[in-house]
Amino acid sequence: MSFAVSGVNCAAATPLNADLTPDLSLFTEHCLRLLAEGCHGIALLGTTGEANSFSTAERRATLEAALKAGIAGDQLIPGTGVNAGPETVELTRHALSNGVRNVVMLPPSYYKGISDEGLFASYARIFEAIGDDRLQVVLYHIPQVSGVPLSHTLISRLIAAFPSTVIGIKDSAGDLANMQAIAAAHPGFAVFAGADPLMLPLLKSGGAGCITATSNLIADSLRTIYDHLDDAALVEPAQARINAWRTLSNSYVQIPTIKAMVGLKTGNAAWSRVRPPMVPLDAGQLADLQDKFVTLP
Amino acid sequence: MSFAVSGVNCAAATPLNADLTPDLSLFTEHCLRLLAEGCHGIALLGTTGEANSFSTAERRATLEAALKAGIAGDQLIPGTGVNAGPETVELTRHALSNGVRNVVMLPPSYYKGISDEGLFASYARIFEAIGDDRLQVVLYHIPQVSGVPLSHTLISRLIAAFPSTVIGIKDSAGDLANMQAIAAAHPGFAVFAGADPLMLPLLKSGGAGCITATSNLIADSLRTIYDHLDDAALVEPAQARINAWRTLSNSYVQIPTIKAMVGLKTGNAAWSRVRPPMVPLDAGQLADLQDKFVTLP
Repeated sequence: MSFAVSGVNCAAATPLNADLTPDLSLFTEHCLRLLAEGCHGIALLGTTGEANSFSTAERRATLEAALKAGIAGDQLIPGTGVNAGPETVELTRHALSNGVRNVVMLPPSYYKGISDEGLFASYARIFEAIGDDRLQVVLYHIPQVSGVPLSHTLISRLIAAFPSTVIGIKDSAGDLANMQAIAAAHPGFAVFAGADPLMLPLLKSGGAGCITATSNLIADSLRTIYDHLDDAALVEPAQARINAWRTLSNSYVQIPTIKAMVGLKTGNAAWSRVRPPMVPLDAGQLADLQDKFVTLP
Repeated sequence: MSFAVSGVNCAAATPLNADLTPDLSLFTEHCLRLLAEGCHGIALLGTTGEANSFSTAERRATLEAALKAGIAGDQLIPGTGVNAGPETVELTRHALSNGVRNVVMLPPSYYKGISDEGLFASYARIFEAIGDDRLQVVLYHIPQVSGVPLSHTLISRLIAAFPSTVIGIKDSAGDLANMQAIAAAHPGFAVFAGADPLMLPLLKSGGAGCITATSNLIADSLRTIYDHLDDAALVEPAQARINAWRTLSNSYVQIPTIKAMVGLKTGNAAWSRVRPPMVPLDAGQLADLQDKFVTLP
């Protein structure tokens, strides 16, 4: 199966300075490590990246820093969908103007109970305002956070109307059957698992890969699975490792826990910082995490 | 009871041009009519105002247009809370720099399951970044849309930490008992009903007034209740009228319905425009609405 975008992509966490602005130097160091560990791409500025708490200026600066650090535009899949359509247009145009054609685009997610018609109109208006044939959009289905699910009807209608633009979806709802159904209905449409343990079964059902949080920590194991899907001797221990790390990363609120674990892995406590409304792990949680961290496979 | 802010405040709808940008001329005409009809203030750029679909630049321009139209700064209560803290700071500073000291501030609402600690830290960081003693903030509790409720513990902690800044709350959850409990716990803290029919019982329980959607249509009846709370001969028909208009405004999705009703009231079909992800009423819905509209008290 050929996809416009595929592979192991990390929903990169964003380290912060003491004033809780993005630490661009530590961030690019992290991105380069993720690529060295096996990621095909960096899905920066997503939910895990706390980008929904960043200004458009901070988002632009973060993407520019990754490019300046030498990461190629086709290795970057920034999140550009925000509540205000004109700002989604601005952020996406900024990516395109910097040689980044693949983006993950959340629908507007403040208003709830939105119809397929309204979501279609929102995406259509944004694509038309951007007006750039290079654009390749990964839709983003994460209803447990956004409150705005993307239905199969909507997905089909968007693919039909914008076949060269709407090239994939990140499905973070955790329902493998939903991901498989989308992949089966739209061969060549890139379905990405938003949960690390689901990349393996999704790849066997025509999926394109993953865009995940635990890949901040164990991208090598995901890459092993991606490259050796039919080699049980390699896949089974890799999947077991992914499961163990993911389970620990869900011990507490996921984003601060993932960041604390990157801190433990790299020996840099600055990674524990999060921007409100996230709260860093407390001392007891950190101590518990550290105890369990050293036992991970 | 004395409050920093009180009265009948309209969560003003925002009319749009054909390109779905805010129609600033029609908007200021609407605001002036609302004040003439009895509103004490205009709570522009809120949920009903579709501001969550507007860029920060569009929000600033809309507030500036209201001021240029001669509306006093103390008659305006713009919404300034967005997901990204730095942009909430920017929008609030912009209001303050234009002589507008009262704002309605949503908490960041993308991330869900946020702790009181995280929401406190978010508000505190924003207030400290703004650093302006003039600021008076109306908190915004609308969990059915934002997905982020404001608990009594959080409200109490914010009032204790920022007594001259955190002066009120708009409670749009529709639970009168919750509004009454907040008012009882914090005398002088301005509790605003987010639902028009609840202003009457809330005022009798120490509330400060309302910030509502139906006031786009029948501000005069709300003002009658506010000014003549103990005069049943005036209050009862006013409340019946409010109930009838509000019921009709909830026949379909509220925001497009309210806007269509303003269009019927003022004879200007341009009012039917909404920005995606909202969808305008269809022809059948509009015809049904018009049939019922002419029978309203």
